[in-house]
Amino acid sequence: GTWCPLNMSQQAVNGVSHRGKVLTLDSMNPNVKRVEYAVRGPIVQRAVQIEKELKEGVKKPFTEVIKANIGDAHAMGQKPITFLRQVLALCSYPELLEDNMFPEDAKKRARRILESCGGHSIGAYSASQGIECIRQDVARYIERRDGGIPSSPDNIYLSTGASDAIVTMLKLLVCGEGRSRTGVMISIPQYPLYSAALADLGAVQISYYLDEDKCWSLDVAELRRALNAARQHCNPRVLCIINPGNPTGQVQSRQCIEDVIRFAKEEHLFLMADEVYQDNVYAEGCKFHSFKKVLFEMGPEYSSTVEMASFHSTSKCYMGECGFRGGYMEVINMDPEVKAQLTKLVSVRLCPPVPGQALLDLVVNPPQPDEPSYTTFMKERTAVLAALAEKARLTEETFNTVPGITCNPVQGAMYTFPRITLPQKAIDKAKEEGQVPDMYYCMRLLEEEGICLVPGSGFGQREGTFHFRMTILPPTEKLKVVLQKIREFHLRFTQEFS
Amino acid sequence: GTWCPLNMSQQAVNGVSHRGKVLTLDSMNPNVKRVEYAVRGPIVQRAVQIEKELKEGVKKPFTEVIKANIGDAHAMGQKPITFLRQVLALCSYPELLEDNMFPEDAKKRARRILESCGGHSIGAYSASQGIECIRQDVARYIERRDGGIPSSPDNIYLSTGASDAIVTMLKLLVCGEGRSRTGVMISIPQYPLYSAALADLGAVQISYYLDEDKCWSLDVAELRRALNAARQHCNPRVLCIINPGNPTGQVQSRQCIEDVIRFAKEEHLFLMADEVYQDNVYAEGCKFHSFKKVLFEMGPEYSSTVEMASFHSTSKCYMGECGFRGGYMEVINMDPEVKAQLTKLVSVRLCPPVPGQALLDLVVNPPQPDEPSYTTFMKERTAVLAALAEKARLTEETFNTVPGITCNPVQGAMYTFPRITLPQKAIDKAKEEGQVPDMYYCMRLLEEEGICLVPGSGFGQREGTFHFRMTILPPTEKLKVVLQKIREFHLRFTQEFS
Repeated sequence: GTWCPLNMSQQAVNGVSHRGKVLTLDSMNPNVKRVEYAVRGPIVQRAVQIEKELKEGVKKPFTEVIKANIGDAHAMGQKPITFLRQVLALCSYPELLEDNMFPEDAKKRARRILESCGGHSIGAYSASQGIECIRQDVARYIERRDGGIPSSPDNIYLSTGASDAIVTMLKLLVCGEGRSRTGVMISIPQYPLYSAALADLGAVQISYYLDEDKCWSLDVAELRRALNAARQHCNPRVLCIINPGNPTGQVQSRQCIEDVIRFAKEEHLFLMADEVYQDNVYAEGCKFHSFKKVLFEMGPEYSSTVEMASFHSTSKCYMGECGFRGGYMEVINMDPEVKAQLTKLVSVRLCPPVPGQALLDLVVNPPQPDEPSYTTFMKERTAVLAALAEKARLTEETFNTVPGITCNPVQGAMYTFPRITLPQKAIDKAKEEGQVPDMYYCMRLLEEEGICLVPGSGFGQREGTFHFRMTILPPTEKLKVVLQKIREFHLRFTQEFS
Repeated sequence: GTWCPLNMSQQAVNGVSHRGKVLTLDSMNPNVKRVEYAVRGPIVQRAVQIEKELKEGVKKPFTEVIKANIGDAHAMGQKPITFLRQVLALCSYPELLEDNMFPEDAKKRARRILESCGGHSIGAYSASQGIECIRQDVARYIERRDGGIPSSPDNIYLSTGASDAIVTMLKLLVCGEGRSRTGVMISIPQYPLYSAALADLGAVQISYYLDEDKCWSLDVAELRRALNAARQHCNPRVLCIINPGNPTGQVQSRQCIEDVIRFAKEEHLFLMADEVYQDNVYAEGCKFHSFKKVLFEMGPEYSSTVEMASFHSTSKCYMGECGFRGGYMEVINMDPEVKAQLTKLVSVRLCPPVPGQALLDLVVNPPQPDEPSYTTFMKERTAVLAALAEKARLTEETFNTVPGITCNPVQGAMYTFPRITLPQKAIDKAKEEGQVPDMYYCMRLLEEEGICLVPGSGFGQREGTFHFRMTILPPTEKLKVVLQKIREFHLRFTQEFS
């Protein structure tokens, strides 16, 4: 339990006149204080400052700040997919349905969405679980993806991006105090939404390490080690997996997924599968396998018992529509009473943003070969994914030519998480400055080259190792510049401290 | 503290083979179980069922279900404001900027919003606090509203509807255990988001009663009674006010607001002012006074000390754009260190939906007299608000002609919360059915007339009194039918149990 000062007015009653603020660092929610989110942390705030300074004409060794800290495709110049935006415009201003500047399939989608909205307006609240016909489209999309394994709209919950659904699911799962407090297994390195949500909920974080030497693969022996150690001080109930990996970019093999599912069943863990990068797979021989498909292929012994939630989003893949905050979660084998509680819980926030729901509907129900928008849609989609594959290759190759930087292949997702070797003198210098070494490294890179990365310490890494996360999203020509600048900086930095 | 069963695999280790689910009603977050949200509760779920039955051709004494349970203007047939939707279409599909079907001021707004978006796309993430130029527009809007009292964009946080900001603010404020657990004062009747959020956060709800006999006005003596009683078992730190009132529709006098602010200062409470209905004031002699304006007019002794957050939304007023989940919060006198924590906390969810942010920008920066869209915009805006005023009057008048229904004037907001007198036999019958009496009443109304209201028990009411909440949003002609049907039902119901 946490202590909190009694209301100061008790003192006032005792005649003390001066009082501080009601809400201070000492009297605020202590769990919130523990929350950290490096992807938008101090280094990003400094980057924003520097951008302002540049605008104000302050001289810098560079003319623009390149924000490679976050997977924000459109901010990096990726153009929206025409079809998606046409339908959204039609939904926003249905008078455009009378106009003949839009293709029929876009109008058809818009009409269907509007007919399923209260008063035929995307300005009406939807059902809290999401618009029913969109949940049906999501279920059909999952069935196609998983080779016909059934999916029910009743198990689909539309959400405000994937983050919202992940936090909601964790909230349902966390309970108990002391030794029986819920423990949640997350990979290290991790996407810091997880550690932040666990801090906020006061849950116990159980860290399992991915194997950098084996392309950031997941090893069940390491899961078991982490679990057994955690059993001493908490009640492990949840296993979180990110595949394809963020920040590590690995794509899990079918075998690995089977092993994880078997482990979850043996150890009676609820599986949370973060699969928002499911369309972002680039490496030769890598393929996305959904946890649900593998679960069902393992037979009824598994498919009828293992409890799971899978998450998807409109923010990544080829769409990159982060600003719309669209997403969904599919729950599998969830206790019906708990599902009722989940539905009740999401109803308090009324509904996910309807424009994001509409966007999701287009992602799961894209133009078909016999429809007028198909050719353009496929051309745009393929171009985005092909460029990402090329940038993934380019990034790995370039970094591995730099002495002191080692980089695993970017098999999928949108990031690289290379390991950097830092001279002892640099580590000592960072300590002097009161910074962790990779934060010091990234801050120097930002100040000297105008490139904004996230230090590996923001995601977690093995003691004594240092990394950074960089998105591969900048346009190819700009990415080449970024990689070159990082190369030069790294050599300069290493020399300075040798 | 709550107890939670140890992970069942402990049993497995001891050789027990069969195991239940990981996540059950017994092993889930107990705070979530305590959450209740009547506005979308069992009665609404039944209403949805009945709609399906009607579609399937099941015979009912009515042909459609009228959902008067929630303030969802567009679902009730209110047409979106043209200007807002034109700009949103332009932002969604900027190719339309080349088209000459849209007025110049709509294009100007869209260009400004797009220029402030990463990659000029509303599909990019925004700053977590919200797009800066929109926060500037919000600050200027507040300054105009409050007669020039300064507002800083740094104190504005854009949000996913008002609910999101209210929950976030409460989360910051809640701490402590046992007797020092944070207590939060909320009005009874209340909007159930508050009780739901407090249950979720495990905070202590401190109920103060509004005075039904005085038009649901707030009495400081009652605040003091509730506060002193609460001091025995918790640490009261927060006072929540809803003005104009939901579900009660009262509009607070300037004097009342001054008294509340004085009380908050004396008792060292953080003020949360839910002002989402600030443009919905109908009654003769009633006027909206923002808590911030009154606070500053009370002089530096107050304006420099009392900590406050005020909330607004794009879902109500004349826009009724609930589906976009737009809103903002202004914080006043907040400790800078706490503000940094708040900014960090919201960054974990990345950003509010950008289409909702764009919509908010239009609400705070509407067409000006010298702009082409001004006339249509004002015509549409005025028509919506005039119709609401007419429906507010109509509702009060009609209900007060029904023996056994007494109804305060709907001074503002979008709801009426009339008191219903129920015969003892009806109360006994409800008990037999295992329902609270007003739930039984509303369920009967739904089954017999197809009208969906929310029982007063979902908002809280004085022991032994019964109410329901009804929105005044149905189109005037339909509202007349609704009121007539409720009248007939009430007489029939009363007779049945006399």
